Amino acid sequence: MLLTAVQLFNEKGFNATSLDDVAARLNITKPIIYRHFSNKDQILFECVRMGLDQVREATAAVAGSPGTGLDRLAALLHRYAEIMTMDFGICVIRTRDHELRPESRSRFRKLKTEIDATICEIIEEGIADGSIDARNVRLTAFAATCTLDGIARWNDPAGPNSPEEIADFFVNFILRGIAPRLSSWTA
Amino acid sequence: MLLTAVQLFNEKGFNATSLDDVAARLNITKPIIYRHFSNKDQILFECVRMGLDQVREATAAVAGSPGTGLDRLAALLHRYAEIMTMDFGICVIRTRDHELRPESRSRFRKLKTEIDATICEIIEEGIADGSIDARNVRLTAFAATCTLDGIARWNDPAGPNSPEEIADFFVNFILRGIAPRLSSWTA
Repeated sequence: MLLTAVQLFNEKGFNATSLDDVAARLNITKPIIYRHFSNKDQILFECVRMGLDQVREATAAVAGSPGTGLDRLAALLHRYAEIMTMDFGICVIRTRDHELRPESRSRFRKLKTEIDATICEIIEEGIADGSIDARNVRLTAFAATCTLDGIARWNDPAGPNSPEEIADFFVNFILRGIAPRLSSWTA
Repeated sequence: MLLTAVQLFNEKGFNATSLDDVAARLNITKPIIYRHFSNKDQILFECVRMGLDQVREATAAVAGSPGTGLDRLAALLHRYAEIMTMDFGICVIRTRDHELRPESRSRFRKLKTEIDATICEIIEEGIADGSIDARNVRLTAFAATCTLDGIARWNDPAGPNSPEEIADFFVNFILRGIAPRLSSWTA
């Protein structure tokens, strides 16, 4: 049910999608939707949370893994880029703060802030072990996530490159910008 | 009138902004707005066009200028980044296709496609003169604009960095990713 809803939100926009549209595509009646969700706003928040949970799982998986800070950052950005080509990830990026109700909005912001903080921590670890060369941790994390978020915002799934190719290209693009000269990432 | 409208769209979102809100902030009556614009959709398109015209002016100014392809790309991206911190540029990025009427939507896409094509041309010039090292022109242009568009999408004007600092940082971040090793951009 969430997957159908998120696909419709991504295609038509949240405002232009009605619960009738969702019910019609699922071939069910609207009361069945109301057994699970109290309204369309709750469905949107659950879709956004699914996408953010995917990113949080990726950060958790990477946080304790071996290797350099740059290795961990590369693994995390790669998974992040892949999520940006998928339905729930796309919904996270295409949903704007003011589309969520105030209480959902503050939960949404809190989850995103936690993800940003973890990315900053990994960059700091990379600076400490010499694998990352960044002058401003906050802006580096910001620029990296802006780049990947753009995939969810603009990528045309019908375009010539596969999600895997796009993820590879974008991650390499970012890492070339922050790895020290002459490392394997910049070769 | 457009500036007030665009600021309200950026603050509250297009759907949540009424022409009454625009009139109230301008301290005028709604009929005065209707003397200039036939409806809210037309105002949104004019705002988006203002932002895109700023970017088009930047591409036109850069296209014939001297120096390497990388020099021209650097100048263009810097101006692009600045526009992404300004009201009309923010509106371009925060407006989604389905918020525009079909005929405006195709004009919007056409203007954006022209800008993308110019950026690709400059990257190709840089590859030809050896100042840019990019394996895939289309994806390089896509990644660079995604990175800068993120400024308009996420930057908090109340944050610790000035628009100038953000533009400098983001452009350097991108150029480090595409300039050949050991050039002045990567030093």
